[in-house]
Amino acid sequence: MRERIEKQMDFLREIDKLKSIGRQNYLMDGVRKENDAEHSWHLAMCALVLQEYMPEPVDVARTVELVLIHDLVEIWAGDAYAYDAQAQAAQHEKEVQAAEKLFGMLPEDQREYFKRLWEEFEACETGESRFARVMDNCQPLLLNDASGGKSWREHGIAKEQVYKRNERVRNWAPEVWEYMDSLIQKHVELGNLSVKQDSDA
Amino acid sequence: MRERIEKQMDFLREIDKLKSIGRQNYLMDGVRKENDAEHSWHLAMCALVLQEYMPEPVDVARTVELVLIHDLVEIWAGDAYAYDAQAQAAQHEKEVQAAEKLFGMLPEDQREYFKRLWEEFEACETGESRFARVMDNCQPLLLNDASGGKSWREHGIAKEQVYKRNERVRNWAPEVWEYMDSLIQKHVELGNLSVKQDSDA
Repeated sequence: MRERIEKQMDFLREIDKLKSIGRQNYLMDGVRKENDAEHSWHLAMCALVLQEYMPEPVDVARTVELVLIHDLVEIWAGDAYAYDAQAQAAQHEKEVQAAEKLFGMLPEDQREYFKRLWEEFEACETGESRFARVMDNCQPLLLNDASGGKSWREHGIAKEQVYKRNERVRNWAPEVWEYMDSLIQKHVELGNLSVKQDSDA
Repeated sequence: MRERIEKQMDFLREIDKLKSIGRQNYLMDGVRKENDAEHSWHLAMCALVLQEYMPEPVDVARTVELVLIHDLVEIWAGDAYAYDAQAQAAQHEKEVQAAEKLFGMLPEDQREYFKRLWEEFEACETGESRFARVMDNCQPLLLNDASGGKSWREHGIAKEQVYKRNERVRNWAPEVWEYMDSLIQKHVELGNLSVKQDSDA
């Protein structure tokens, strides 16, 4: 029993590091960038509030678990910016190894449970993982909108990139997409998102 | 429909401020203090990992909801340090008013849902709220332990204060308490927690 609880507490200590994994988006007040732990909490709140917009039935409690743990592997694999294609490509293999090591700290039953949760989020084949992905796409949009497109401008992001990244929102939660699209349009007009000439016909 | 989703998104924007509500505990690396959003996320993870130690049956999904929202009222009421008795006494009334305003931003059905969640956490009369309280007491202990008792030393906290604050852990989750008590003893020996003379008989 003592060995079991020691493992669990060591895992809970290790994941404290998620609070120091920085992201590219600014908080809504624009003062500093968000970290992964704050992002994960915010996604869980989004899931509790926006569940009615998933056209397919979803288990919200499981969705919350998915978003709470989805970025944990970044403790050992780091964060790859959503609009950095090169970093994204190398990221998956690093994350698979990180999941093995991190969840491997837990007793075997919990190791399997959390590994399956993470794999479910990655595979995106269940309603819950689709809902989690929709939240994971929309929450940064809310931050970017409120902070005046600060991180879009810093990285010179184009509307087309945001559209491509949010295809899943459009396909899986059209009503949420409609709201998000109105925000994107606003920032195109404000010049915070550029528009590519060759796709602007 | 548009009015409903606007309210929900405004609420999700408002609660971004939880990431800027500071707490007294340091992160485990001791570099900076924790904020409420990080704390809430960490409690949810603790609930997922430590559920087996509640002697009474608990709905973990509901417990996770309780810990995710339990500190939201501090956006408008501020944080009162656990060992500041004067601040604690004035805190409840401020929080009741904050809950009215904050959850009042949501559509009526969700307003009632979240208000009831928060009241359940406060009242501590269900197994889920007791489990949530146990996590809310234990997680700062883990932080204090890992950061060398930094915030205990800064505030000159005595062992007896930690014991009193953690009475609920002892009563409601004895196995977790046994683990936590071993940490407390260690920090008494290290001199990071003082011992009151008159209760030291």
